[in-house]
Amino acid sequence: MSRPKFLSFTQKNRKGYGLLTEEGVVDLSARYGARWPTLREVIEEGSLFRLAAESASLSSDFPAEDIRFEIPIPSPEKIICVGVNFPDRNEEYKDGQAAPANPSLFIRFPRSFTGHNEPLIRPPESAQLDYEGEIVIVIGKGGRRIAEADALGHIAALSLCNEGTIRDWVRHAKFNVTQGKNFDRTGSIGPWLVPYTDEAQLADINLETRVNGEVRQRDRTSRMIFSFRKIINYISTFTTLVPGDVIVTGTPTGAGARFDPPTWLKPGDIVEVEADGIGILRNTIADEVSA
Amino acid sequence: MSRPKFLSFTQKNRKGYGLLTEEGVVDLSARYGARWPTLREVIEEGSLFRLAAESASLSSDFPAEDIRFEIPIPSPEKIICVGVNFPDRNEEYKDGQAAPANPSLFIRFPRSFTGHNEPLIRPPESAQLDYEGEIVIVIGKGGRRIAEADALGHIAALSLCNEGTIRDWVRHAKFNVTQGKNFDRTGSIGPWLVPYTDEAQLADINLETRVNGEVRQRDRTSRMIFSFRKIINYISTFTTLVPGDVIVTGTPTGAGARFDPPTWLKPGDIVEVEADGIGILRNTIADEVSA
Repeated sequence: MSRPKFLSFTQKNRKGYGLLTEEGVVDLSARYGARWPTLREVIEEGSLFRLAAESASLSSDFPAEDIRFEIPIPSPEKIICVGVNFPDRNEEYKDGQAAPANPSLFIRFPRSFTGHNEPLIRPPESAQLDYEGEIVIVIGKGGRRIAEADALGHIAALSLCNEGTIRDWVRHAKFNVTQGKNFDRTGSIGPWLVPYTDEAQLADINLETRVNGEVRQRDRTSRMIFSFRKIINYISTFTTLVPGDVIVTGTPTGAGARFDPPTWLKPGDIVEVEADGIGILRNTIADEVSA
Repeated sequence: MSRPKFLSFTQKNRKGYGLLTEEGVVDLSARYGARWPTLREVIEEGSLFRLAAESASLSSDFPAEDIRFEIPIPSPEKIICVGVNFPDRNEEYKDGQAAPANPSLFIRFPRSFTGHNEPLIRPPESAQLDYEGEIVIVIGKGGRRIAEADALGHIAALSLCNEGTIRDWVRHAKFNVTQGKNFDRTGSIGPWLVPYTDEAQLADINLETRVNGEVRQRDRTSRMIFSFRKIINYISTFTTLVPGDVIVTGTPTGAGARFDPPTWLKPGDIVEVEADGIGILRNTIADEVSA
């Protein structure tokens, strides 16, 4: 049996969450919404598995075509992204520095992301919209100073991210990548959450990004500079992780910025981020339409 | 008459908000909490002034000694901080670079702050807890690509921030200051919100930080590299600002890191951030007590 796929959606102007099955969408928010307004609260109560088990026999409420995918956790307390986490990515910077001792971290706001199948938005300020395919971990059990040995037990679910970036705005100021990483709807998270059960789901899986079917990024998680364990340990050293927190764990080499000449995403392109056992996150590109 | 002071508090393990008067605290959450759970929702409805007017005749519900101050907006969608925004601060970096063209921005999570009169927490990982006194603007009217000419009309209220920093963790990784700026409860926001009415409240006010009564930072907002108008304009270029968003607008020269040798905050110190017409944000320092 395939793993349950928990998704957040908009259907007929109503936001909800549910399970995606081969028949369609089982609307869990219609049944449990009063108790758990979003998947964040489901995770907070540790009820992801229970919900999957209880819902296995339910038939779908509407076809998948009826919904728009939303990012799985609509309002996490935190979305923390790891920069430079694959060996060749560090070399790409050509600054002669050895692999860094600690992960570089930055923060994105939920509104910088859109859901699966939605267009990434290229703003009028820049033509340099770039992709970065990444694996997402969602925290289930919170904590501070979580030991590496215990870290994986704090994961509730996995997902994917196209950590879309406005490249020339990443170095727009003296320090920090904030603005280039936070243009509204330039990235995506999804398509769904897959509950996390054991390390084999993460330890050595293939992660790849395709643009119009052409593989641009491909690497295995076993090659990450900072392991999932280390990332959770390091982040929880300074901030208390809470259920529903989203960690975006870094991208392999091969973003468009690294081509010579660089190649940017443009309207009409299709970008797919795929990882073994999680799924395929697919987005088109569209120019922003002025309001 | 002095300006109304809106505060968020904990009283007898209950969180609330109210007005601070000379007599004590007028508990507004007891009266309006069902409609507006926090000051964020009050601001969202543009009701800060109405609430101040309606509450002017109410007597206080309890003395100020009964409450603990919380950060004024407990869960803003965003807390965006501006780095390097006073002329001498840029020179402090001694990197030979001219004043930057665009503001450097980073993000802090609400849990990296505590309220007025609470201790800033020095974590066991570092002795380098440093102060940065700053002026806070709280967004009242949201928007995207807000013109500089209109920007001040988007401000609902003013406050203060001690943008406390774990200095050696700011450069812990290859890029970004995220971790050094996000240790739990290393900074503070408050003591309260002062409704914003006109530019004179901001245009050329004195901002200073004192440690144990000694002035360490002092400058005037008229000398900021990036004006309040520019900051709102620039940030709203990439992200949609929403009511309750908090912008921390940069600190004058004189943080402890710039002394030779550097001087760090230690338990027993008292740090005060003061700005004309807003108030004094006062915090002590305490070592973290392990749970």
